[in-house]
Amino acid sequence: MREINIALLGFGTVGRGVAEVIRRNSKIIEDQIDCKLRITHVLVRNTEKYRDLDILKDVVVTDDFNCVIDAAPEIIIEVMGGIHPAKEYIFEALNHRINVVSANKDLVALFGPEIMHTATENKVNFSCEASVAGGIPILKPLHDSLAANQIESIIGIVNGTTNFILSDMDDSGVSYSDALRVAQKKGYAEADPTNDVCGYDAARKLAILASIGFRANVTFDDVLVEGIEKISQKDIQYASEMNYTIKLLAVAMRQENGIALNVYPAFVPRSHPLASVKGSYNAIYVTGNIVEDVMFYGRGAGSLPTASAVMGDVISTAKHILNHSTGTEMMLTETKRIPFYSSLKLKNAYYFRLLVDDMTGVLSQIAAAYADNNISIREVVQKSRIEDAAELMIITEETPRENIIHVEKALQVLPCMRQVANIIRVMDDGKR
Amino acid sequence: MREINIALLGFGTVGRGVAEVIRRNSKIIEDQIDCKLRITHVLVRNTEKYRDLDILKDVVVTDDFNCVIDAAPEIIIEVMGGIHPAKEYIFEALNHRINVVSANKDLVALFGPEIMHTATENKVNFSCEASVAGGIPILKPLHDSLAANQIESIIGIVNGTTNFILSDMDDSGVSYSDALRVAQKKGYAEADPTNDVCGYDAARKLAILASIGFRANVTFDDVLVEGIEKISQKDIQYASEMNYTIKLLAVAMRQENGIALNVYPAFVPRSHPLASVKGSYNAIYVTGNIVEDVMFYGRGAGSLPTASAVMGDVISTAKHILNHSTGTEMMLTETKRIPFYSSLKLKNAYYFRLLVDDMTGVLSQIAAAYADNNISIREVVQKSRIEDAAELMIITEETPRENIIHVEKALQVLPCMRQVANIIRVMDDGKR
Repeated sequence: MREINIALLGFGTVGRGVAEVIRRNSKIIEDQIDCKLRITHVLVRNTEKYRDLDILKDVVVTDDFNCVIDAAPEIIIEVMGGIHPAKEYIFEALNHRINVVSANKDLVALFGPEIMHTATENKVNFSCEASVAGGIPILKPLHDSLAANQIESIIGIVNGTTNFILSDMDDSGVSYSDALRVAQKKGYAEADPTNDVCGYDAARKLAILASIGFRANVTFDDVLVEGIEKISQKDIQYASEMNYTIKLLAVAMRQENGIALNVYPAFVPRSHPLASVKGSYNAIYVTGNIVEDVMFYGRGAGSLPTASAVMGDVISTAKHILNHSTGTEMMLTETKRIPFYSSLKLKNAYYFRLLVDDMTGVLSQIAAAYADNNISIREVVQKSRIEDAAELMIITEETPRENIIHVEKALQVLPCMRQVANIIRVMDDGKR
Repeated sequence: MREINIALLGFGTVGRGVAEVIRRNSKIIEDQIDCKLRITHVLVRNTEKYRDLDILKDVVVTDDFNCVIDAAPEIIIEVMGGIHPAKEYIFEALNHRINVVSANKDLVALFGPEIMHTATENKVNFSCEASVAGGIPILKPLHDSLAANQIESIIGIVNGTTNFILSDMDDSGVSYSDALRVAQKKGYAEADPTNDVCGYDAARKLAILASIGFRANVTFDDVLVEGIEKISQKDIQYASEMNYTIKLLAVAMRQENGIALNVYPAFVPRSHPLASVKGSYNAIYVTGNIVEDVMFYGRGAGSLPTASAVMGDVISTAKHILNHSTGTEMMLTETKRIPFYSSLKLKNAYYFRLLVDDMTGVLSQIAAAYADNNISIREVVQKSRIEDAAELMIITEETPRENIIHVEKALQVLPCMRQVANIIRVMDDGKR
């Protein structure tokens, strides 16, 4: 049987998953492509750590990338993460006419088009399904199956850490900091959780999704980001009372004159399919002008689920190798920039939680501030009273972001205002 | 700009959608493939009906298939439906080395492998994404993106008519027959709804899904089918009280010694992602041994959503034509049969609704019948009393189907039994 030699760059969580899949499902894979996939080399920083692993017993474990290149594998799987030296390795591999499969969202979000052009020039494949939303098939379906659509919007729950924290706060009534601690204990959050809870990770994935969906060059820097650090148990609870749940959404939205790209927490109606995406699951909700709404749901991370996406790409690449058609399937090739729509103009309904003096006339002061900024109020509820302070919840009608920024400033200087405790977008259920 | 000529066989709902997409999104499509797609011929039975349509003004409308073949289009889109003459047309097109895209589930469910082999022999493409679940990208993702997985189960809500009826019964509290009438009025159900409500349509789609997922030749006849005709408002209501909703599920399940293939209504826990699939939406929930759970959700029918899937295939085919690589992407080629697992052995929890005499000792008679058939009872609730009859709801533990059939017979002959009103499977929430 024909064999295809594979080198793995990196042997962390995903790398081990890939090795495990090739071992466990070898027959399933061979039946499909009539060819054996064999890991011949694994590149790691500290080779000693891996010498005695049973799963690597017939594999060359090396810390020297030249050794990998010299072995001339037909496919290199890059699962080391980070920009350097992953970037240099990938370009060198492609320039040596070696096909590359990568799970590296940081790299793809920054250098997707450049990498893809180098692959095409060298007539080899570069694929990166695993770089967004772990095991969920999304990049290829978005690029190929929905190709006839003008994509109107992409709304993703693409960060497992924040979704775990928010789900836990919703299900168990715990505080943000307790939920974060649990996430850290379970390995869902890192010791320094900034990258996840501040929305940067979601922004990288959104850049990749938007690049493919809107066929343009969108990078991390184009995305405006808000995190979940300010979400309190009270916000969760008030959302729940109105039949909403709070999710961190990565949103790319076509507007009349450009694309708006934002990551923010939002109230999601419980009847919306995104509301039932719990714990470390991810989902991407896509609206096209032809297909209407589609959603892709599944495990957004984890060793085996991510390896499933990597190996899907590897098997596709193997088919291309056997068909002598590598270098023909491209995505993320667009270098054209698109106009970005100012998020200041973007309309949403908003939730406000305000702590105010509990005295007559307060509501009229507050209502005037909203009216002065052209904001219609949908609902005002006094939620609780703490000594001489009252907590108000206000839901606005759809309002441009800039008016919200203005009213926030106006509210903060009102004599009766103790604290503008939180402002969160409210997703409308739309026509569903 | 290079042009690819296309002929459309059939100009019903989907055919019109395809023409509309090519008109509306032509720029989006041309930007991707650097090539113009042009419908040159439309084959219909009654040409007079279509002569004055604006959208067909530069198109040859004909009732003669030879006229289509003689024009030698590069792609034929078959959206006429039914077996004859669609089957003959498709084989003739393939044998003339014309690529074919089809939305015809009846045909693909019966002759998938045969068609695919003819396509391969002739080095052309045959694709049929639109044959299952309308606009939802499912066949290609299942075949390609999940290729590294051993598929463990496929659970689909793949029939929009029944899902509309069941959602309506759940949301509005109407009876089955009223919901069916509404569905017929809205065009979701046909005058003779048998094909949908009895589960045959879902069974065809399951055959296609299982063929791809389990890489075997599965046909409509392999699927055991139960419909929704017996579901009453009471069943819906009792399900709801226990936090379930009733859905018609198409289920392919890997067992130790084969694959079990069934279509049946079932209680689905409201926390399960399939529970929020409402109205005419479809979803397919796939479990693989690597990826764990993924779900694909969207519009399961309709002119434009289905055309989105058709056109996704057309654009892929166009890329293959331009790359001179048609005939290399195959699915549904397996002719190997797999052992089918007897559905009699398949275990589920079950819901029983029983109408019994309202007198002492009845429960012990009934409990004995279950015990005699090795069925453990999880819950018994007396739901209502009508004159001298009582209505009981019983939920069993997981039990093989054959024991359920036996207990049904045993219950029917009990002196206290007025009616075994309904028996419905209960889907466990599993580890989620």
